[in-house]
Amino acid sequence: MAVVPKQNFRKYFGVEVPAVDFIYEDEQCVVFDEMKNPQAPVHFLVVPKDIIPRLMDTNDGDERLLGHLLLVAKKVVIDKDLYKSGYHLVVDEDYRSKRLKALHVFGRALHHMVWPLGPGARL
Amino acid sequence: MAVVPKQNFRKYFGVEVPAVDFIYEDEQCVVFDEMKNPQAPVHFLVVPKDIIPRLMDTNDGDERLLGHLLLVAKKVVIDKDLYKSGYHLVVDEDYRSKRLKALHVFGRALHHMVWPLGPGARL
Repeated sequence: MAVVPKQNFRKYFGVEVPAVDFIYEDEQCVVFDEMKNPQAPVHFLVVPKDIIPRLMDTNDGDERLLGHLLLVAKKVVIDKDLYKSGYHLVVDEDYRSKRLKALHVFGRALHHMVWPLGPGARL
Repeated sequence: MAVVPKQNFRKYFGVEVPAVDFIYEDEQCVVFDEMKNPQAPVHFLVVPKDIIPRLMDTNDGDERLLGHLLLVAKKVVIDKDLYKSGYHLVVDEDYRSKRLKALHVFGRALHHMVWPLGPGARL
């Protein structure tokens, strides 16, 4: 769980991110806590090492990698003991997305996600 | 896109669901609109035909199926032309979950999901 300097992160991901500790790492991806703008008390990211296209641009050849990202998310959920209180895993994307940056995993389940939401909220 | 009677759904999925039109079907999964309790103007489900364990209980052998579910979600997002306005894809699970029922896909991206949320909301 080494701290990864910003310049190495750039090399890996082609984007600017702060130095972080990895929670998990393997050949295909890394996992680290979202620290810049966490959206929940537990919020971590599963990030593929290869810069892969947006989910919109993936094809059948990416099936194993995508499945792997889900399985790694699961592994960290178990390690963090999030299972009982619940969790949700989110891919969020629109035309401004330049790449599939990460699967977001949040602690606690989305049981009460309600639409329509309050002022300022957009589903 | 045949209407699937409730009894056939039971056979496929072991759970009671209303008769629905499939948006998409292949050997591994079906896709249909959430009609009972939609959480967004567009809300559809990607459901594996085999009753597979919760994401918590999956293992490396499920990698391809999990990746396939993501790729099918992508395909329907494109067919429904959701890409520009955005979408998010959610797996929601806790200790009460009996199986991985579905990937939920919602129209519009989750840009403004904010924590902490308002009264009654739980992330």
